[in-house]
Amino acid sequence: MDFNKVTIIGIGLMGGSFALALKESGFKGMVAGVGRKKDNLIKAKSLGIIDEYFIDPAAGVKDADLILLAPPPGQFEAIAEDIKGRLKSGAIVTDVGSVKGEIVKRLEALMPEGVSFVGGHPIAGKESSGVDGADAGLFRDARCIITPTRNTDGSALENVVELWETFGCKVSLMTPEEHDMIFAAVSHMPHVLAYVLVNSVMDIKEDILRYGGSGLKDMTRIALSSSELWSDICSCNREAVLKALKGFSSSLTHTIELIERSEWASLEKEFKKAKKRRQLLESD
Amino acid sequence: MDFNKVTIIGIGLMGGSFALALKESGFKGMVAGVGRKKDNLIKAKSLGIIDEYFIDPAAGVKDADLILLAPPPGQFEAIAEDIKGRLKSGAIVTDVGSVKGEIVKRLEALMPEGVSFVGGHPIAGKESSGVDGADAGLFRDARCIITPTRNTDGSALENVVELWETFGCKVSLMTPEEHDMIFAAVSHMPHVLAYVLVNSVMDIKEDILRYGGSGLKDMTRIALSSSELWSDICSCNREAVLKALKGFSSSLTHTIELIERSEWASLEKEFKKAKKRRQLLESD
Repeated sequence: MDFNKVTIIGIGLMGGSFALALKESGFKGMVAGVGRKKDNLIKAKSLGIIDEYFIDPAAGVKDADLILLAPPPGQFEAIAEDIKGRLKSGAIVTDVGSVKGEIVKRLEALMPEGVSFVGGHPIAGKESSGVDGADAGLFRDARCIITPTRNTDGSALENVVELWETFGCKVSLMTPEEHDMIFAAVSHMPHVLAYVLVNSVMDIKEDILRYGGSGLKDMTRIALSSSELWSDICSCNREAVLKALKGFSSSLTHTIELIERSEWASLEKEFKKAKKRRQLLESD
Repeated sequence: MDFNKVTIIGIGLMGGSFALALKESGFKGMVAGVGRKKDNLIKAKSLGIIDEYFIDPAAGVKDADLILLAPPPGQFEAIAEDIKGRLKSGAIVTDVGSVKGEIVKRLEALMPEGVSFVGGHPIAGKESSGVDGADAGLFRDARCIITPTRNTDGSALENVVELWETFGCKVSLMTPEEHDMIFAAVSHMPHVLAYVLVNSVMDIKEDILRYGGSGLKDMTRIALSSSELWSDICSCNREAVLKALKGFSSSLTHTIELIERSEWASLEKEFKKAKKRRQLLESD
C-alpha cells in the first residue's frame, strides 16, 4: 500500500474499525477523521483511532491518498459533491456502504479526472453502533464485496482489494446490480422483517416479548440496529428491497393458506425444505 | 417430591433432559422411558438417562407416580387413550408441550378418577433435537409455564410447580388459552417466519444464503428445528398461529407500502419504535 494519508468520513463502528485495522496492519501514515459531531471526533482521537479530525469534509480530504466513505449511504452523494474539488490527482475514493447500484453510478460520475472510485461492502457489523464499538478485528474472516464497473481503474481496484485482504477479509467481486439484488434478500429484507416482527408481537400485548425464548431473541437481534441507517438503506435500495419483501410476502401468504386449509403434510414439506437449505449455511 | 417411579414418554431432547435433571436433583427412584424407537431407548439407557424402557406406553406407566408426556403434542391424545386404563390412583400426568388450550381440555377429560393432569411448558430448547442433546442443565434459569384450570387438583399442581423449581426454572401460571395466544406470537409464528425466510431467500437464487452475515444466521437459526414438531405445533395451535401470522402479514404490508410511497420518515419511526421495544428484551 502506497498511502501516506487516509481520510475516513464517518467515524462510527465501521469507520472507526477501519482506522484501527489500518493501524494494526502496520500503516504508519496519517489517519484523518471527518464527522459532524465534534465530541465523537475528540473521543476517537483520544482513543488513538484517528490522528486528526475535521468537521468539514473538504478540508479533511486535502492530500489524502485514500478516502473512505463510511456514513449512511444516503449521504454519499452530498459528501462527494463537497469534496470533489479538493481531491488530489491519483486519489482513490472507496466506501463501506450496504448499497451499491445507483450510488456507484453517481459517485463515479462525480469523481474528477485522475480520481478513482471503487465501491466496497465489508459484511461485518455488530448491533452496537458508534465509535465505542470500533474493533481492529471486525473485518477478520469477514466477506468483503468489491463492485467494479467498466469505468473502474485497474490499479485502484487492486489497491482496494489488497487493503481488505490485509484486514483479513475474503474478497468477492460482483457488479453493483448483482450486489444490490443479493443484499436486498440476505440483509436488507431480514432487517425490515426483524423490525416488523418486534412491532407485530408487541402490538398484540405490550409485555409478551419477555416470554420469548432464545429463538425470538436471535430472530429479533438485528432490530437493535440503527433505525436511521436501515431506513436509509431501504431508500437507497428501494426497488430490490421491495422485490425481496414482496417475494417473502407471497411465500408467507402461501404458508398461511396451508395452515388455513389444514394441509399439514405440505406445511411440513415446506419446513423440511427450509431446514435442509439452512443446514447448508451451517456447514459453510 | 414423593415419587418412586417416573415414566417419561418420548425420549428426545426434552424427555431426556427431564430425566437427567431429575437424577441430578437427587431423585433416587426408577425412571422408565417409553418410545417408538428401540435403538434410541437402548442408547438412552446405556447413557444412564433412563433405568428401563418400554415400547408400549401402557406397560411403561404401570406403578408410575408421575408421567411426563414429551412427544410432539399431536400425539398426546392417542397416548392418553392408551395409558388411561393403567394409571395408578394418585398419579400425576404432566407434559412439556408447546401448545395447551384444546389439548389440556382433552387430556383432563381422559384422566380416570384419582389421576390429575397438569399442563406444563418449559421454555427451553436447542436446535439439536434427539436424546443426544439431552442436558441436565437445559431447564436452569428457563421460564416454565404451568397452565392450571378450574379442574386442576391443588396438590398435584403444587408438586409439578415444585419439581420445575427444583430444576432451576422460574415458574409462571396462566390459563391454557392465554398461553396459546402468547406462544403463537413469541414462538410459533417466529418459527414459521424463519422457515419462510429461508425458502424465500433461496428461491431468489439457490446459492445466495452464504452472503448473509451473522444477522441472517441468527434470524434463521430456528429453521434448523424439527419440521415435524413445528408443523404439528401449527396444527395444534392453528387458530392462534393464524391470528398472529395475519397480524404480522398486515404489519408487513403496511411497511411495504411505506417503502413503495418513499415515506422514509415514517419508516424510520417504525424501525425506531421496534428498536426501543427490542431493547426492553435485552435488559430483561
